[in-house]
Amino acid sequence: VTIRARSVDVPDLVGGARNGDPRAVARLISLVEADHPELRAVMAALVGAPAGPPAAVIGLTGPPGVGKSTTTSALISAFRALDRRIGVLAVAPASPFSGGALLGDRIRMQDHALDPGVFIRSMATRGHLGGLARSTPQALRVLDAAGCDLVLIETVGVGQSEVEVAGLADTTVVLLAPGMGDGVQAAKAGVLEVGDVFVVNKADRDGAAATARDLRQMISLTHRPELWRPPVLQAVASTGQGIGELVEALEQHRIWMTSNGELTRRRLRRSAAEIEALTLAAVQRRIGSLDPGSRLNDLAEAVLEGRLDPYRAADTLLTALGPAH
Amino acid sequence: VTIRARSVDVPDLVGGARNGDPRAVARLISLVEADHPELRAVMAALVGAPAGPPAAVIGLTGPPGVGKSTTTSALISAFRALDRRIGVLAVAPASPFSGGALLGDRIRMQDHALDPGVFIRSMATRGHLGGLARSTPQALRVLDAAGCDLVLIETVGVGQSEVEVAGLADTTVVLLAPGMGDGVQAAKAGVLEVGDVFVVNKADRDGAAATARDLRQMISLTHRPELWRPPVLQAVASTGQGIGELVEALEQHRIWMTSNGELTRRRLRRSAAEIEALTLAAVQRRIGSLDPGSRLNDLAEAVLEGRLDPYRAADTLLTALGPAH
Repeated sequence: VTIRARSVDVPDLVGGARNGDPRAVARLISLVEADHPELRAVMAALVGAPAGPPAAVIGLTGPPGVGKSTTTSALISAFRALDRRIGVLAVAPASPFSGGALLGDRIRMQDHALDPGVFIRSMATRGHLGGLARSTPQALRVLDAAGCDLVLIETVGVGQSEVEVAGLADTTVVLLAPGMGDGVQAAKAGVLEVGDVFVVNKADRDGAAATARDLRQMISLTHRPELWRPPVLQAVASTGQGIGELVEALEQHRIWMTSNGELTRRRLRRSAAEIEALTLAAVQRRIGSLDPGSRLNDLAEAVLEGRLDPYRAADTLLTALGPAH
Repeated sequence: VTIRARSVDVPDLVGGARNGDPRAVARLISLVEADHPELRAVMAALVGAPAGPPAAVIGLTGPPGVGKSTTTSALISAFRALDRRIGVLAVAPASPFSGGALLGDRIRMQDHALDPGVFIRSMATRGHLGGLARSTPQALRVLDAAGCDLVLIETVGVGQSEVEVAGLADTTVVLLAPGMGDGVQAAKAGVLEVGDVFVVNKADRDGAAATARDLRQMISLTHRPELWRPPVLQAVASTGQGIGELVEALEQHRIWMTSNGELTRRRLRRSAAEIEALTLAAVQRRIGSLDPGSRLNDLAEAVLEGRLDPYRAADTLLTALGPAH
């Protein structure tokens, strides 16, 4: 609400972001989170004149407690040693109960807070329709403009939609830990489809090898030779063990994707998800609110009184939406 | 997938549900979860000929570990003692990581599993757009048809959208516990707006009185005399302590809502949310998929190549959607 009240100097902010000014980058991502009316102008400016090649985008996801933040922090160190400029987006749905808590682990990334080559941002999207699908690509555009070579998207939620957001990355890393009893279950439930690289973190604990073996077996069952075969690594992110192998696997996956067009296909998917989310948000605005006398109000009354079923009410709204003006 | 393959005899299922056949009710709610194509016919049949007065709908929400399932179970016992027929919906977003776990607490409700006057159902909605907003009202229609006097909606997720689903109930109970350190924080973050009755559960622990006092103070700050003043109760749901007072508070809230039209306003809001979710799902189907040569594909390519910004791409899609045929 406050952010909407402040005026936005779009050219100034976009110029600042292009110069790598962290405050301009932060402000632009705040506009993305708030779905600010000036975003349309911001995105037009960013799309029209790209700053350079797009950043490589790596998604990290996994159940709570698996060490996502620690792994992200270790990856930042590894990529900084290669002199890459890095953006980090920690994405979580806003929760009125645990707002701070879901993102509370950010402390592990404080090591990098003073490094001007690292831009870290937690993003909480309110229950907006398609909020994550819209805001993640838009935040990536901002980080691209700021000259990031690489963006890590860490999804903190446990829901399907957070996993899907990680899946909007070029490469998705799925983290599991031994003894959580859900390695195989997770795989069954669809995580196999989204993971390009699997990491059994906390590999100094009992059962790491068994979890890795289970995962490899499941991958074998569905693997087709023309596809990328997701490696299953073991790591102890807190000590850095296995992080070099992870960086290497990410590099291999990028080479594979570039060689066969998969990278373009994935970026196309991300653009499509962004367009779809923006379209649905526009439809939602046109449906309007439940003010007395509004069309939605009339239809809701008819449904409530049993004069109309909800599907026919939706048909009526669709017909009334008509083309854009 | 399996469910789509089986044929659906709509009149048979609807008739079965009206006779209180638990298998018919379960099957219909499965159709709701799966967004089955026959739902349109099911809802038309249910809306056209209501079985009786609509069930009272009570939402329960709160952070993990606060005792939602225990409280739900205690409420079931209390309402069964009043000879009410009860439906329970435990709603959670599907998670590939914790699928079973989020809903694992259902065991506490097993006491009621053999009671033919109680229908308990866990609903996990995949990351569908507006899936919770659509499926909750639809499941309520099924339980209404089955003659439920009362439906308890327990939301198991921690996100904003689960809280909003609880807010689609006639009366929303927000559970908190002492010593979780988030009583006041939760209130700040918007839970105050959605709660009609607050329960500080586990009130035999230190700090219960302080949490209740904090909540009452915050309620006083925003209270207006013409509005319902949410009571703040203390309970130990595991022993049944305070549950009688909760039932009484729920009854008082219902009387207040009925006397001033608020009950109708809330049910109107629920119908509107359902219509909106169905409309957006229809738009999403019309946008179609990212097949080569599709309109969405062309637009995504243009955005990817920097020839178009995503907002203008969304404008194009909107114009193309046109009216329903």
